[in-house]
Amino acid sequence: MRTIDERQYAALSEVARLVAAGRAGTRSALASATGMSRATVSQRVDTLIGAGLLLDGEPAAAVRGRPPLTLRLNPLTGVVCAVDLGATHCRMRLTDLGGAPLAESATSIDIAHGPVPVLTSVDTLLGELLLQVGRRPSEVRAISLGVPGPVDFATGTPVRPPIMPGWDGYPVPAFFVDRYDAPVLVDNDVNLMALGEYAHRSGAHHLLYVKVGTGIGCGIVSDGELHRGAAGAAGDIGHVRVPSHEDVPCHCGNTGCLEAVASGAALVAALRSKGCDVRTTHDVVRLVGEGNPSARRQVRLAGQRLGEVLATAVSFHNPDLIVLGGSLAELHEDLLAEIRGVVYRRALPLATRSLAIETSLLAGRAGVEGASRLALRHLLSPAGLPRLLRQPKPGEK
Amino acid sequence: MRTIDERQYAALSEVARLVAAGRAGTRSALASATGMSRATVSQRVDTLIGAGLLLDGEPAAAVRGRPPLTLRLNPLTGVVCAVDLGATHCRMRLTDLGGAPLAESATSIDIAHGPVPVLTSVDTLLGELLLQVGRRPSEVRAISLGVPGPVDFATGTPVRPPIMPGWDGYPVPAFFVDRYDAPVLVDNDVNLMALGEYAHRSGAHHLLYVKVGTGIGCGIVSDGELHRGAAGAAGDIGHVRVPSHEDVPCHCGNTGCLEAVASGAALVAALRSKGCDVRTTHDVVRLVGEGNPSARRQVRLAGQRLGEVLATAVSFHNPDLIVLGGSLAELHEDLLAEIRGVVYRRALPLATRSLAIETSLLAGRAGVEGASRLALRHLLSPAGLPRLLRQPKPGEK
Repeated sequence: MRTIDERQYAALSEVARLVAAGRAGTRSALASATGMSRATVSQRVDTLIGAGLLLDGEPAAAVRGRPPLTLRLNPLTGVVCAVDLGATHCRMRLTDLGGAPLAESATSIDIAHGPVPVLTSVDTLLGELLLQVGRRPSEVRAISLGVPGPVDFATGTPVRPPIMPGWDGYPVPAFFVDRYDAPVLVDNDVNLMALGEYAHRSGAHHLLYVKVGTGIGCGIVSDGELHRGAAGAAGDIGHVRVPSHEDVPCHCGNTGCLEAVASGAALVAALRSKGCDVRTTHDVVRLVGEGNPSARRQVRLAGQRLGEVLATAVSFHNPDLIVLGGSLAELHEDLLAEIRGVVYRRALPLATRSLAIETSLLAGRAGVEGASRLALRHLLSPAGLPRLLRQPKPGEK
Repeated sequence: MRTIDERQYAALSEVARLVAAGRAGTRSALASATGMSRATVSQRVDTLIGAGLLLDGEPAAAVRGRPPLTLRLNPLTGVVCAVDLGATHCRMRLTDLGGAPLAESATSIDIAHGPVPVLTSVDTLLGELLLQVGRRPSEVRAISLGVPGPVDFATGTPVRPPIMPGWDGYPVPAFFVDRYDAPVLVDNDVNLMALGEYAHRSGAHHLLYVKVGTGIGCGIVSDGELHRGAAGAAGDIGHVRVPSHEDVPCHCGNTGCLEAVASGAALVAALRSKGCDVRTTHDVVRLVGEGNPSARRQVRLAGQRLGEVLATAVSFHNPDLIVLGGSLAELHEDLLAEIRGVVYRRALPLATRSLAIETSLLAGRAGVEGASRLALRHLLSPAGLPRLLRQPKPGEK
């Protein structure tokens, strides 16, 4: 096989991504979409077919003459493993390179046990799912993981994650290097939730995904791209100061943080101090569901405080969509009403003119959805494609 | 002349931008940088030379054989007009298509007189500058203007600008359409200041430009691109609520806004209430320069309030550089010290680890610098190039 010149990968990537996105299914559609000549497109397509990445599929309807063949990703080319790690859960989804789900499963973990035990659980679950769908470990083309803390995305290393003891500076990709010949991408879980939700919101360009659970975090998508910031810390709104609550101490050592007054943990503490029998965020959700007045009152107060901080985020970032996720988002009748009230009253009219504030469509699956999107984007990118095309074709050893 | 196929503009744009940025000065460097074949590069370069946009310049040093010619933008191809409109000033710079300044001037205006009188002043100043450099109005290839209010960038229309009576919904480009055969780009002034400052800060990827003058605004650059948000309102931090000052009324109708407690106007009001003889932000700057203790105290308080809001912006956006501009930025000894103190104490350690907070390098010229960059980017973009290449070549009528 001819060696692919490095400089051709950008063009190959463009072709592969257009086919994967369903935006161009024939050679002539690719020529129109890319501005490449028919001959160049055919060369690129042949390279991708030769490498086993694309297939000439069913003939497309054509007006006359020989019908053009529709191109599609070869579902046998490989498997992508998307993982969402929370404080206590691991959800995993296997997809093909087109993003179609092959299998999904979840298991309990304790993130505080540290990287080796947790990643060993991930590896075991991956082995089980591969067996279940009858694919080999050598067919895994990418692994992407969301973790509940800040991550240096370039190296896949958690950085001072508050609820992940033992993970600070641990290079997650290294754990998998002997097990799978695949790139390993690691990102903050809420970033991936934002990416997953964005993929299902065709009208939105600038999206904030706000996760309200035991803690509070935010993922930012701008013009379709994750905004991670200079150190991967963007969206960390849990320790922003909330007006009128400057004296409440927070576990971070500061006072008046949003997490100290509006998180699930804060709600649990507030309700316990009033004699309610609650220990987890789920208990709070249950109490509200039962119509407990104290619980509803506390949730509405939390909504106001979230609204104050989100109003600032709206004035600053001017999103067109805020998506509320996390376990407290189930309380949308109370929580969402308060958030909307404060944001629409406090943020500038121009910034809220076309703003929608809604609950997540994907709920607990936003994380794996985003992880899967991230991996697929990477694989078909100019940076990811060379490795993908060097790997054995389907059917080869 | 052969018609240029629409689909070739992307490639022409890539070549023109590489030459303009000084990143590729020869055909072979362009071939390496773009991945195009030598033949394709030569075609593209010949098209751009034929259209008068590029010149084969001085021979570059070469190891042996015929020295390759270095390509450069043709300085005679046209003139770009960059304008920075403030509440009371109009600064204008003419550059060639490479961004080299040809002339610069400033005049006083009153933005509140409305669009027609103000834009007539702009037009008069442009005529004078063109005469001064001996170029014709037909040589103007782009006009870009920053205005002190929110703008719908796609249409060049101010949207509910608080200090620009008469400008709401006025289509600024239409004013120039009969006078110049050139695209007219309109953006918020602080956005352009952010872009101008970014161009002079090679190490920064995520920059916030915070203008503190009579009002307070912020321009956001993410990975080199302006973040304007869904409605062009991004960065509007003047009406964000400041902790501990919830009861101070603001001219916007809300209370506790940053502008109500930390702007030049707020400082003037606070000092007047203490019997100081101040009427403008410049008077405040003067008083502080004279060592007036009340004035220094008020400026330090303003710095703390700015710091509170910027700490939130840092936690949310995670920039690597905050640039302080505007007339109060001259008071950097007092103001900057307080801002830094609050931001480094309040924002998360990860978000401030590589954060610098500095004063503007460009001061009053950040706006025209950004306007000029915006126009040049547009002209050489796939969207801007077709119009540029349809225009008469240098020397033609």
